[in-house]
Amino acid sequence: MTAARVGIIGAGQLGRMMALAGYPLGIRCLFVDTDANAPGGQVAPIRPAALDDLDALRGLARDVDVLTFDIENVSIDALERLNSITPVYPPPASVAVAQDRLAEKNLFASLSIPTAPFVPIDAPQDLECVGERLGWPVVLKARRLGYDGRGQRVVRAADGLAPAWESLGRVAAIAEGWIGFERELSLVAVRGAGGAQTFYPLTENVHADGILISSLAPYEHGELQATAESWLGQIMRRFDYRGVLTVELFQTREGLIANEMAPRVHNSGHWTIEGAETSQFENHLRAVLGWPLGSVALRGHTAMLNLLGRMPPALRLLAIPGAHLHDYGKEPRPARKLGHCTILDRDRNRLLGRLAELKRTVGMAD
Amino acid sequence: MTAARVGIIGAGQLGRMMALAGYPLGIRCLFVDTDANAPGGQVAPIRPAALDDLDALRGLARDVDVLTFDIENVSIDALERLNSITPVYPPPASVAVAQDRLAEKNLFASLSIPTAPFVPIDAPQDLECVGERLGWPVVLKARRLGYDGRGQRVVRAADGLAPAWESLGRVAAIAEGWIGFERELSLVAVRGAGGAQTFYPLTENVHADGILISSLAPYEHGELQATAESWLGQIMRRFDYRGVLTVELFQTREGLIANEMAPRVHNSGHWTIEGAETSQFENHLRAVLGWPLGSVALRGHTAMLNLLGRMPPALRLLAIPGAHLHDYGKEPRPARKLGHCTILDRDRNRLLGRLAELKRTVGMAD
Repeated sequence: MTAARVGIIGAGQLGRMMALAGYPLGIRCLFVDTDANAPGGQVAPIRPAALDDLDALRGLARDVDVLTFDIENVSIDALERLNSITPVYPPPASVAVAQDRLAEKNLFASLSIPTAPFVPIDAPQDLECVGERLGWPVVLKARRLGYDGRGQRVVRAADGLAPAWESLGRVAAIAEGWIGFERELSLVAVRGAGGAQTFYPLTENVHADGILISSLAPYEHGELQATAESWLGQIMRRFDYRGVLTVELFQTREGLIANEMAPRVHNSGHWTIEGAETSQFENHLRAVLGWPLGSVALRGHTAMLNLLGRMPPALRLLAIPGAHLHDYGKEPRPARKLGHCTILDRDRNRLLGRLAELKRTVGMAD
Repeated sequence: MTAARVGIIGAGQLGRMMALAGYPLGIRCLFVDTDANAPGGQVAPIRPAALDDLDALRGLARDVDVLTFDIENVSIDALERLNSITPVYPPPASVAVAQDRLAEKNLFASLSIPTAPFVPIDAPQDLECVGERLGWPVVLKARRLGYDGRGQRVVRAADGLAPAWESLGRVAAIAEGWIGFERELSLVAVRGAGGAQTFYPLTENVHADGILISSLAPYEHGELQATAESWLGQIMRRFDYRGVLTVELFQTREGLIANEMAPRVHNSGHWTIEGAETSQFENHLRAVLGWPLGSVALRGHTAMLNLLGRMPPALRLLAIPGAHLHDYGKEPRPARKLGHCTILDRDRNRLLGRLAELKRTVGMAD
C-alpha cells in the first residue's frame, strides 16, 4: 500500500480535520507547526519547526506528493521556493492576494466583483479624505495579518480616525465604508485538476466581535448562489486554482458584495462534514492531489455552532439527539475556537429550534 | 483539555475506524498489537506486543479509562485480570461465549433463540449419530478460532465426515444441519450505561467462501426487525452488556434463526459510517465510556462493498459520484480485506444499479 502523502503547513483544527478526512482515502498527512501538540499533531505526524523555517519546510516538501497549508499567514517567498520542489496548492499567488486587503480589493475590482468602498491608508494625510469619500462610520483594517476581527477598528467620527490608526500601530491599512448588510453569507468552492469545479450552497453566518458564532446551510437563493458562483469561478480561473476557496459576502439591499477571501478550508464550511456528501476537507485533499472531486449533494439543513473559550461537557452535548461534536484538543482560552457542534434536520424551522436548544445547552444566550 | 482514553486490544481496521471516530469527540485511542504498522497504528499510538502479553496489556489498562478490543480471539483470562485494573467492555463473559460455538449455541437455546440443529463433536463416536440427527449435508465447524469461513467444512455424505474432522485437526467441533436460507441478515445493536440500548436496522449480507462481499441496509421487515431486536436485547441483558453487539442471522422459510454473535463492531455495520446519523464505531466508543448513545437514524439506503485482495486505484473509485472509500492501509494478499466502499441513495432500486456499477469498476463480476 503506497499512501498518497500531503504535507500541511500549520497544524490547527483545519489541518486536523483534513488529516482525519484523508485517512479513509489512503491519504497520510504530515504537519509542520511550531507546537508539537497542536490539534493536527494529535492525529498525524508533526515536525516541530517555525512556519518560516525553510529547511524544515524543504524537508517536508521532499517527503510528500503535494504541499498545502491550514493558515494563510505563511511566507509567500517560502511557498514559491517550495513550489519548485513539490507542487504547492492553493497557488501561492492566491495566498499573496488574500494576505493583503488592498490587493484583495484590487483583485475583486479587476473582476468587477463589488466590494465596500474603501480608501488605502499609508500615510497620515491619507486619513484626511476618508470622511468625505466614505461617510461615517468607517472600519479601519490593517492590510495584513488580520483574522477573526483582529486588526480592525470601527471609527464613528472624524476625530476617532487618527487615534484608531495609532492603535493599529500606523501600519498600512484600508478604511472601508460602512456596509449596512442584511445578512452575512459565505460561499465555499473547490477546484481540482483540469479546471473541474464545484460549489457548496451559500451559508448564512453569524459573527460576534468578528468571530464566527454559527453557520446555517443551505441559504437558498438561486440568484445570489449563481452570482457568487460566477465570482468564485472567476477568482479560481485567475489563479488556475486548486483546492478549496472561501469568499465571505454581505447581502445588502443593493445586492451581494464581497468582503474577503480565504484560500483554504473555512470555519463556515465545517457543516459540510455531516451536512454534505463530501466534506470541504476531503474535497480540498482530492483537489490538491488532482483526484476527482466529491459530490457536494446535501443531506438536509445543517447548523454549525462554534464552541468558544471553554468546552461544555461532552456528555451534555452528546445527550442531544443528533448532535455531532468536534473537539479540537486545544487548551481553553477566552474566545478561542475549541471545537464545534453540528446538527441536521430536514426541516429548516425545526433546525432553528434545535439550534436554539443547542445554544442553551452550551450555555449561550439564544 | 483532558481527553477520554480508550485502550484497544488489536489494531486492525475495526480499531482504526474506532480511533478515527473517536478523535472528533475528544476520545484518544491507544492500541496494543503485534504489528506496529497495523491499520490502527497508522492513525493512533500503538504499543507493539503480543495480544496475550499480560505486562503490556496491564500497562495499557493503567493508561486508559476503559479497555475494549477489535477482535474476539483474545485471552479471556487476560481480559478478566485487566478488568480488575480498568473496566473492560464488552464484558469478558460475552467474549468467552462468542469464542466457543457450543457455548454460543447453548446461550441461544437458553434464551429460546432458534439456531440450526447441531451435534457436538468431541470424540470419534460423536460422528456416528450426525447423519441420523441432522441429515445431509452438514457443516462441520471447529468450536474455536473460526472466522471468515476458516475452520469450516461442508460435508455432503456420511463417508466425508471423518476425513473432514481429520482435516480440522480433530479439534472440538460442532456439526450443524444444513440451513436452506433465503437471505443472510445481521443486526448491529449497541447498549450503553444504565441499560440504554439502540438497534440499527437489519442489514442484508452477501458472502462468498465465508467472506462478506457486500451489505445493503436497511432490510425493511418490521416483524423480523422486532424479533431480532428482542433476541439481541435478551443477549445484552444477560451479560449486562456495554458496546456494540452483532448477530448474524439466516432468514429461512420457517422464519429467522441465529447463526453467530460477535461482541464487537462488525463488517456488516461499516455502512453506518455514511448511512446512519451515528456510526457503529462512534456508538461503540460512547457505549464503553458510558456516554449517551448517538442516534441511529438513517440517511438513506446504503450499500457497502468490501475491497478484497487488491485495492482498485483510488482515483477510479472516487470518480464514481457519491462513492466513499475506506482504505485500511494494509498490504495486499489474496482475499484479504483491504478496504471498503460505500454508496447511498434515497431509492433502493437505484442503489442496486449503482452497486452493480461499483462492482464493475472494482473489477468484480456483478
